[in-house]
Parts: sequence; structure tokens; C-alpha cells
Amino acid sequence: MKIGYLGPESSFSYHAAKRQFDTADLVAYASIPACLQAALQAEVDLAIVPIENSLEGSVHATIDTLSQNPELQVLAEVILPIKQQLLAVNPADFQKIYSHPQALAQSQKFLATNYPLAELIPTASTAAACEYVAKQHADQIAAIASFEAASAYGLEIVSSDIQDNDFNQTRFWIVSPKKVMDFGCAEKMSLILTLPSNQAGALHQMLAAFGWRQINLSKIESRPLKTSLGEYFFVVDLLLNRPSELIENAIEEIELLGGMVVRLGAYPVTITSD
Amino acid sequence: MKIGYLGPESSFSYHAAKRQFDTADLVAYASIPACLQAALQAEVDLAIVPIENSLEGSVHATIDTLSQNPELQVLAEVILPIKQQLLAVNPADFQKIYSHPQALAQSQKFLATNYPLAELIPTASTAAACEYVAKQHADQIAAIASFEAASAYGLEIVSSDIQDNDFNQTRFWIVSPKKVMDFGCAEKMSLILTLPSNQAGALHQMLAAFGWRQINLSKIESRPLKTSLGEYFFVVDLLLNRPSELIENAIEEIELLGGMVVRLGAYPVTITSD
Repeated sequence: MKIGYLGPESSFSYHAAKRQFDTADLVAYASIPACLQAALQAEVDLAIVPIENSLEGSVHATIDTLSQNPELQVLAEVILPIKQQLLAVNPADFQKIYSHPQALAQSQKFLATNYPLAELIPTASTAAACEYVAKQHADQIAAIASFEAASAYGLEIVSSDIQDNDFNQTRFWIVSPKKVMDFGCAEKMSLILTLPSNQAGALHQMLAAFGWRQINLSKIESRPLKTSLGEYFFVVDLLLNRPSELIENAIEEIELLGGMVVRLGAYPVTITSD
Repeated sequence: MKIGYLGPESSFSYHAAKRQFDTADLVAYASIPACLQAALQAEVDLAIVPIENSLEGSVHATIDTLSQNPELQVLAEVILPIKQQLLAVNPADFQKIYSHPQALAQSQKFLATNYPLAELIPTASTAAACEYVAKQHADQIAAIASFEAASAYGLEIVSSDIQDNDFNQTRFWIVSPKKVMDFGCAEKMSLILTLPSNQAGALHQMLAAFGWRQINLSKIESRPLKTSLGEYFFVVDLLLNRPSELIENAIEEIELLGGMVVRLGAYPVTITSD
């Protein structure tokens, strides 16, 4: 089986793919749209891309590409804890610390306490930071990246789990136009809702369809439609805690009210502890 | 007056700051939290940071920092169109094109049509791409960045407005703990809502407070509370199209129902055409 992921190797998407599909053939793509297009064109069997709180790219790219390609279905969700490590050739009083801007931001308190004078230098990815530090092989530079990046780039873990917040997680979606394998019983459903017009209370009316049926929303997000300013669509995650007939009825009611509903998929959720 | 912005110089945040405060003293910060902290500690009078659809960093960082520092108030919103330019030392059949991953993604169709064989190389920012191309001074490399970056880095605009979508915009917020200047009449209000518990229909009940008063929501987004998985707070933008008493009553009703409301600010919106 071939699995596409948001590269480079040692990215958090790579780890998510590796944990789910240890023996599969993993293929790196440079962007989220490229990775999802590969699944659409059957270059790969499945694509794994970040959907929330990722380090390596915009999650908006995932939602926007899926909303434009309704053939793609979300088959499963994988949640990975994000733990940052300080990596270097040797421990030292580092003068420059390289990483993705979000990894630098997530390790702020640690850096301010331990390396208050170090210059923090943003890179395109945590992998790019490791590659640079490994290549320079200099004493006073360090990178912030994942545990697995240490061995991938031959660097030493100088300080471990330096992220400010222990609840930092990234959600990934496993996506394909076909149900190529069984991931188990669906726990969540994701929908894209487009409202009939930008009228006051239209969103409230849509949400009422779920609310009075006691269908729980675990996430809601509005995204610009890109047709004109102030027009939005909504991405909604439902917990499948109620009979499926109720959920089908809610969707039908929204469509009767003039809303447009795109089903991104119903899928199980796996939380990996490490 | 001193204005902090998300650097580097020639970033889109810089342009937003320059358009609003042409004669002010502009100070670059390396991250959104650092920029907002500078306003909190009165190192600068105002901070200007991206809030939606930005190229240079995560908007989540803006929301999360504001939610943790309720003293900071949004005083104004500025909307900037995002137009991408292909920049190089000379026109050529480019083999490598450098830019921020989102700028590469936003110019996908243009690149696939005009430079199908070029290698697309992600950088930490559009500014970093320009700096690299200007420094290398080689013939077959190009960068994607803003119009203003061309003169800032002494590069030629080889192709202009290459972005796939003309409605691509970034929203910026002007933030300060004090009302240091008058930006005009408020048009929008942003709130952070924390629900009393993760119960089915709680969000629906909160939104009903706005819905039945016909207060229009222009944006809603859930963000993890970071205390445990599946707990969220909500960021809501209201249009101030209804009498302010109605809005105050809606907020009071939400608080009576056990919700927590943090006011990020009520502010005017400026849309710059170029």
C-alpha cells in the first residue's frame, strides 16, 4: 500500500503515517494540495494530512482542498501529541536556535528561561532546521524538532519535551476517494455547510437542526467562500453519539432550509499517546 | 508613535502597518506573541498582527495570545488584498522557485502552467525567499512575494498578480491595552465564549442568544481550551448592525446561562484596495 504524506521525512505527518502504516510505502509531498491530489489521481492509496494545530503547514489548505474535491472522503482521524526537543551536535551555550515559527512559539518559556540571549531563527519546517544544524556541524547552534528527527539527522537531544503546553496535539486526517481499508466504527462526522444567504440568524437556524436533536458539535469553523468578502462556509464536526437517523434528518432539514451540505466523511478517531 | 508588527520588513504585516501609520516608528517582532507582549508592556503603542488567512504565521497564535491577555483590546481591523508577484534578478526559465508554502500554494495554477518543471522550495517567509534570491544573484531562481518586496530586495517583477484567487485577503488587528487613538465608529465586535460544559446543544443555546435578536455573526471558530482534549472555546465576530443594548443583553444572557465571555474589542474595519 502507498501512503502520501506532507513531507519532508521526519515531519509530524510522517510520524503519524509511520505509526498508522508501519510497513507501507510512504511518499512525501511538498504541499497539502499536492498530497490530496495524489490520492485523487490514485498515485497513492491514502493521503495523510494535518487538519488542526499543525506545525508544518496551514490547516486551511486541507479544508479548502477537501471542499473543492468532494470525491475525497475522510476515512479516519489520528491525533498525535506534539512534543518538542532541543537538538544539537553537542550541548553548548547556544547562540542561534533554528525551527519552524510555531515550534519556536511553542517552546517560548523554555527558551526565555534557558537561552535568553539566543537568537531565534525561523525556518520553513522543523526538518529544515535539523538539516541546517546537522550540515553546519557547528557548536553554538541548535534546532527544535521531534524526538524522531534526532536520529534522522544524527543530532543529540540536549533537552527533551521543551514545549510550554503538554496538551499540544495535532489532528491528522486519512483521506482517499475510495474506502481502501476498514478503520473501524465511525465516531465523528465532518460536514461543510454553505448557508442560503448571509442573513442574520441563518447560522443559528442551521445549528438548531443539530441542537434540538442533542447532536454534539465538537468543532465549528467558518471559512471565507472566496467569492466575495463576508461570505462564509462552515466546517462542522459532529460526534456520532446519537442514532444515525437523527443525524440524517438534521442534514435533510438543513438542505430543505436552503443550505448546502458536503459530507467530508464519517470516521473513527485514534489518539496515540506518544 | 511606535507600532510593533510581525516582521520581517516587507512582510504583509509591515505593509498593513505602513498603510495605516505611514509616519510612525515601525518595530519588527519575530513572532505574534512577542509582538502582542510588546504592546502589553508598552514597548510599543500599538501592535498590528494577522488574524485570518495570513501568509507569515499562524492566526491561532493571535487568538490564543489575546485569549490569555484580556487587557489587550482590538482597536481596529485592516483588510489587505494578498497579491503575489514572481520576482527575480532577470526573467529566465526558472529551475527553482522559493517562497512561503502558502504563497507557493496560492500561485499553484500559474506555476503549473508557466513553470511546470521548476522545483518549488518552501522558505520560512516570503521575505526569506527574496533575501536568498537577491543574495545568490543567480539567473535561474525566482521568489514569490509582495509587490513592495521587489524594491526592498532590488528584484525585478517578472510576472505580476500570479495568485490563483483574486479574493485572497488577510485580516489584521490593531491591538493595544489602551485606546491610544480614535479609529472611528465600531462596526464589528469580537468575543471569546467559553461554554459552561461540553454538553450537547450548549453552543446552540449560546448562539440562540444572538440568533433570535437577529445579531449577525460574521465568523465563528472553535479552538481547543488546552486543558483537556475535546474542550473548546469559541471566537465569535458580531456585526454591530443592531442596537448596542441588544448586544449587551445577548452577552448578559450567555453569562446568566453559565457561559464565560471575554470581549476582545469593538472596532471599525478598513478595507484597503491595494
